[in-house]
Amino acid sequence: METTYSPAPETKGAEAATSGAERLLLAARAAGAEICFANPGTTEMPLVAALDVVPGIRAVLGLFEGVCTGAADGYGRMTGKPALTLLHLGPGFANGIANLHNARRARTPIVNIVGDHASWHLPYDAPLTSDIHSLARPVSGMVRTIESTADIEGDTVEAFQAALKAPGSISTLVFPVDHQQHPAPSSASAPGLIASPRRFDESRVEAVAQMLRSGKRVVFLLGGGALSERGQRAAGRIGENPAVRFFSETFPARTERGGGLPDIDRLPYFPEKAIEQLEAADAVVLVETIAPVAYFGYEGLPSMLVDERRLTTLADVTECGEGALVRLAQVVGSSGRETGVSPSRYAIPDCALDPALVGKVLSNALPDEAIVSVEGGTCGYPFVTASASAARHTILTNTGGAIGQGLPVALGAAIACPQRRVFALQSDGSAQYTIQSLWTMARERLPIVMLITSNRRYGILQTELRRAGSVAFGPQARALTELDDPAFDWPSLAAGYGVPAVRASTTRELEAALDQALAHTSGPSLIEMVLA
Amino acid sequence: METTYSPAPETKGAEAATSGAERLLLAARAAGAEICFANPGTTEMPLVAALDVVPGIRAVLGLFEGVCTGAADGYGRMTGKPALTLLHLGPGFANGIANLHNARRARTPIVNIVGDHASWHLPYDAPLTSDIHSLARPVSGMVRTIESTADIEGDTVEAFQAALKAPGSISTLVFPVDHQQHPAPSSASAPGLIASPRRFDESRVEAVAQMLRSGKRVVFLLGGGALSERGQRAAGRIGENPAVRFFSETFPARTERGGGLPDIDRLPYFPEKAIEQLEAADAVVLVETIAPVAYFGYEGLPSMLVDERRLTTLADVTECGEGALVRLAQVVGSSGRETGVSPSRYAIPDCALDPALVGKVLSNALPDEAIVSVEGGTCGYPFVTASASAARHTILTNTGGAIGQGLPVALGAAIACPQRRVFALQSDGSAQYTIQSLWTMARERLPIVMLITSNRRYGILQTELRRAGSVAFGPQARALTELDDPAFDWPSLAAGYGVPAVRASTTRELEAALDQALAHTSGPSLIEMVLA
Repeated sequence: METTYSPAPETKGAEAATSGAERLLLAARAAGAEICFANPGTTEMPLVAALDVVPGIRAVLGLFEGVCTGAADGYGRMTGKPALTLLHLGPGFANGIANLHNARRARTPIVNIVGDHASWHLPYDAPLTSDIHSLARPVSGMVRTIESTADIEGDTVEAFQAALKAPGSISTLVFPVDHQQHPAPSSASAPGLIASPRRFDESRVEAVAQMLRSGKRVVFLLGGGALSERGQRAAGRIGENPAVRFFSETFPARTERGGGLPDIDRLPYFPEKAIEQLEAADAVVLVETIAPVAYFGYEGLPSMLVDERRLTTLADVTECGEGALVRLAQVVGSSGRETGVSPSRYAIPDCALDPALVGKVLSNALPDEAIVSVEGGTCGYPFVTASASAARHTILTNTGGAIGQGLPVALGAAIACPQRRVFALQSDGSAQYTIQSLWTMARERLPIVMLITSNRRYGILQTELRRAGSVAFGPQARALTELDDPAFDWPSLAAGYGVPAVRASTTRELEAALDQALAHTSGPSLIEMVLA
Repeated sequence: METTYSPAPETKGAEAATSGAERLLLAARAAGAEICFANPGTTEMPLVAALDVVPGIRAVLGLFEGVCTGAADGYGRMTGKPALTLLHLGPGFANGIANLHNARRARTPIVNIVGDHASWHLPYDAPLTSDIHSLARPVSGMVRTIESTADIEGDTVEAFQAALKAPGSISTLVFPVDHQQHPAPSSASAPGLIASPRRFDESRVEAVAQMLRSGKRVVFLLGGGALSERGQRAAGRIGENPAVRFFSETFPARTERGGGLPDIDRLPYFPEKAIEQLEAADAVVLVETIAPVAYFGYEGLPSMLVDERRLTTLADVTECGEGALVRLAQVVGSSGRETGVSPSRYAIPDCALDPALVGKVLSNALPDEAIVSVEGGTCGYPFVTASASAARHTILTNTGGAIGQGLPVALGAAIACPQRRVFALQSDGSAQYTIQSLWTMARERLPIVMLITSNRRYGILQTELRRAGSVAFGPQARALTELDDPAFDWPSLAAGYGVPAVRASTTRELEAALDQALAHTSGPSLIEMVLA
């Protein structure tokens, strides 16, 4: 147990007291905050001014709050550290909820700062007044209003503490503007930030080892830190046992892939397929993930994809799945040989694009240490299948199903990892929810490569309508799932936000566009991939 | 251990039983619903299919839920009838909250239908599960989950009843997908929709008449239906008394203006100015509005803009302010002469655009019976000042302060009033929050004329920073309030959504652009107004 927090430094003399806004930023900076994804309004102006007084916290402006919260998610997934968001009262917070929902499912640490009316003005129910706690609770592990200037430092430290506590969560601090403005003391008794390293349970390792020695057919389901390079390499060694199979969560927050790692498939999305995979096993072992549940409920199919009696936990979501896998690999005495997939390139025919070819062309193009934010099934699944043999890369997926997540997460990842190339493989429908991301990418000169799958429909909804038995769509159902009237002109939209863009319809065009985008290092590029 | 399997699906009879989704739409149609602003997902597919079975409800697709809820607000303000929205679980609802916040402040009737997981799937906390009630409560007068197929009809009628009850509010029905799918009975005992006409209180009219007869200086503050043509004409007659002055709410949901109506100013936004106007009066009389409160709290200034002892209510927000004004005009025995402003045209110099000139050029261009959705102060205030002498028009403003309201409200108004020309006078920063509105306007061929004030900054925030004493902005404060790096290319953004657009920097260019836009009747047009 170590203390990583030092009391906020007193940077000013007696005549220029530290404001509440400055006090919060000092405490946040001391707790490790380096970035603030902001869409402020009138009630956050003291915090805006304080960002120029307190050094070390970079402010990044989003045109829409969902861009800010999604970027904080991407940043947190890549760094393990909470970004700040700065949001404007209840309605501003509300615009950020969808991507906070995704971040909550990803267990990403985030600290939201939400300005509010002056505490004495709140009872008068001015137009922008709303119940921020009611809005924040569904996505926040901790919600607190800072009730006085004396509480600012302690509340901030607690917010970081809560966000960082394994497995990671979202803290929301509501900060009335009068407390931002007034002088705020530094408390000698402010609690320190306590780092608690993740551990694993040796007895669980032994129990699973026993299972493997007994010859049981075992499926491992990996999430969280179990999908690190080290975790996957350990899985590869355990996987020398032919009775063992590994899957990752269907929508992992972050997974390493390619560059010689084993090919760990995602658990299938539709319950029939997932059940088929899991039923073949005598036991399903959870490693930093929860029991698999059907994404949606379908009549005649169960919600729980595995019978509880066949479930075993090697590491729960608060524990260290990576360490547990490494130990298990030692215990079961595998040879230590690598069982990874050797990197290789796909031979690509010169033809029109389809999802499988998009996946292969992108896999071929990935530079080492790329980050790929994947949203949308059309090209997402084929890409992940293809990319096992790509160069080493990190994949970030939509963990919570609230769409409009892929572009902001790519933005946050690019801020977090300026040395790595970031790609956003993104469906057209979902891209529209947070299209404003393009502007912040251009403004921050982030060399993100966006690949927009242009199929001009909500593909998943048409699939679901067919599953529900609507084979012939009526005109309104068709209108509610088609995006072709008018079709988006992606190069125009990108130009509107200062992002260069091209359109690609064939494999050769896509390859050329990727070459060009990778050569463009001073800002983002967009490629509209037109599928037939 | 309980079974995780759902009940077996019921087989439909040869006569094809009415599904729950169809039952809800039938009940909504009977209650007056004609339109559904929809952004559905998997859990709303039975409702999507039902829209093709139940006649009479037009589905309009939004690419983002804030477009749908804002459009429902615009539609409700123009028709007095609730539109349906169709939203996808908690995160989809959350994306619609900001404009529901505005609609709540406008007292617009709306009925939200939010699909949810199958009732038997909910306990398993699948990725898209969230606490929808907690999200919905801050913006909804009624929130209810439909608990069984037998409740669908009754719950729907109650939702409409609640939404339509004076002064108007938002109802949110959470509709699990299994209840949408299963056959649902029609209940003979379902409650009917009860119309309750608004009334006013004669004794209050007499009390205010007494005040006027006694020679008191009286300020009337008008909101809601008091801002109808009839209400304003009555105000004009009462206003022959030189001791009387009229203001509208600062952000009225709907006000008629021009075409010979009296020039009723909006109560100023900043509290000092508002207090100055109100302090001159012996009494402030409320007509379908609430006691005026400062938009934000500023140290040293009160929250309540009028001392409670000087407040009198002629009609509260549930009553008929229009009727009360008409009766008062009769009682105080005014001459009946009209005191309206005669329509006239401004002489416009040939020069660069500024906000005052934009207001005048637009006033000149308005055809009779235009609707103008105004969001953003830069050109909004000058336009409203100028438009007293324009042709008769209706103004819709941002009632709740959650920005991103103007374009969707224009969209909803255009759906509601296909015979009237709709304008959106919109600031650039706020337009970005719901930029996806353009696509639905193009798709629905709505001849809306969008005028985007391009000043490439959050003007109000710079004003507020200055008020807070930050005369010299630091680099981060500047970055968080400037939108010039990169500047939006509005014609490109519009083209991306299939909307023709031009740029205007001078008065003559703006006049020509407005002529062209008005001649274009088969869809929307956008004019970027570049201010120096």
